[in-house]
Amino acid sequence: MSAAPASRRARPAKAPLSRAVIIETGLRILDRDGAAALTMRRVAQELDTGAASLYVYVANRDDLMGAMLDHVLGTIPEPAGATWRERLTALVESTVAAMSRHEGLALVALGAIPTGPNALDLIERMLAQLTAAGLDDRTGAWAVDLIYLHIAAAAVEQSVHNTEDGTEADYVTAVAQQFARLPADRYPTLVAMRDTMLAGNGDARAAWAVRVLVNGILATPAD
Amino acid sequence: MSAAPASRRARPAKAPLSRAVIIETGLRILDRDGAAALTMRRVAQELDTGAASLYVYVANRDDLMGAMLDHVLGTIPEPAGATWRERLTALVESTVAAMSRHEGLALVALGAIPTGPNALDLIERMLAQLTAAGLDDRTGAWAVDLIYLHIAAAAVEQSVHNTEDGTEADYVTAVAQQFARLPADRYPTLVAMRDTMLAGNGDARAAWAVRVLVNGILATPAD
Repeated sequence: MSAAPASRRARPAKAPLSRAVIIETGLRILDRDGAAALTMRRVAQELDTGAASLYVYVANRDDLMGAMLDHVLGTIPEPAGATWRERLTALVESTVAAMSRHEGLALVALGAIPTGPNALDLIERMLAQLTAAGLDDRTGAWAVDLIYLHIAAAAVEQSVHNTEDGTEADYVTAVAQQFARLPADRYPTLVAMRDTMLAGNGDARAAWAVRVLVNGILATPAD
Repeated sequence: MSAAPASRRARPAKAPLSRAVIIETGLRILDRDGAAALTMRRVAQELDTGAASLYVYVANRDDLMGAMLDHVLGTIPEPAGATWRERLTALVESTVAAMSRHEGLALVALGAIPTGPNALDLIERMLAQLTAAGLDDRTGAWAVDLIYLHIAAAAVEQSVHNTEDGTEADYVTAVAQQFARLPADRYPTLVAMRDTMLAGNGDARAAWAVRVLVNGILATPAD
């Protein structure tokens, strides 16, 4: 807001509207102000245009969020690794990281069959690794589904920790204090194991979870 | 709204407010009108009281949603089954079903360490099965975490299908039509497998996913 109104002519030329520009603007608002601030009206303001102009390029906020997710999935690097297992693990880890970096995007992935071009690239790469692992088609198809569900869930979990007030350590400390007060008669196993329950850092647990999925998939043909 | 105003005296006595009554009312609103309709103001109206009166019993909407989730987890039956594996599977399946029955509740479970009394009962029962399976404490602790994450994610996915416009079959048909148009040069594995990708009903896939998790956990000690 400048004190003296600038004439329209004196202002820098507006970037021409496009789906890509709208997606980038949406991500900028999301990362700066959070998911609640991301409205079509707000995107229009940021682009110095009317909301009606946006609807030429995006159908509604859900469509925009889906397009933002697909844009982010387009930034996932080609997986490095000598074996299919290393490449698959790298894909899972970079996707969780990419999705969790933007509040609310992982939620869009949860419960939807991936249909964006970059999401399908990701599915293609994961399927290629699973095929290299020697899985039959049906097991590979179900496996990629389960892995994508896990990626989205792990990213939502990670993203909650990223946006929470206070640190993750504070949160774990508060839970540990609650666990320390649990009655052993009602929760015998939990109380016996409570020191172990919260042990191990998040990265080690996350890497273990991916190993569990891969080992489980190899051991469980779909029938 | 009756045409003639009833005197306060003539109306039936209001149920005394309590946390339990507020939770039941919240669930009724959620199931009838959806998550967006669930506000503290709306719960207060339904109970014929002011929102301020509710805050004696619940801190805010998040606290209420958490309490509603824990209430729902309290309805999960003792798992039947001759083996720890059958009992664990029964627990997972009933929890997914219970959470997905109420829009938005599974999202509350996702990314939060379970701390409600009924959630802890569920964790206790799952840990008891994992201990019966012979897992060491660390693997058991990480396993219950991963299983709970999967339960919440599967319930969100299920709940999205439950509340979507149209049937799941319509949705799958639309995706199948998109898959049929995918270019084989960009998506060779996906195109080769596209008939398999969408095959198999949701229940079979969900049951397979639980088998994958259990087999994977057994094959993957936490280190």
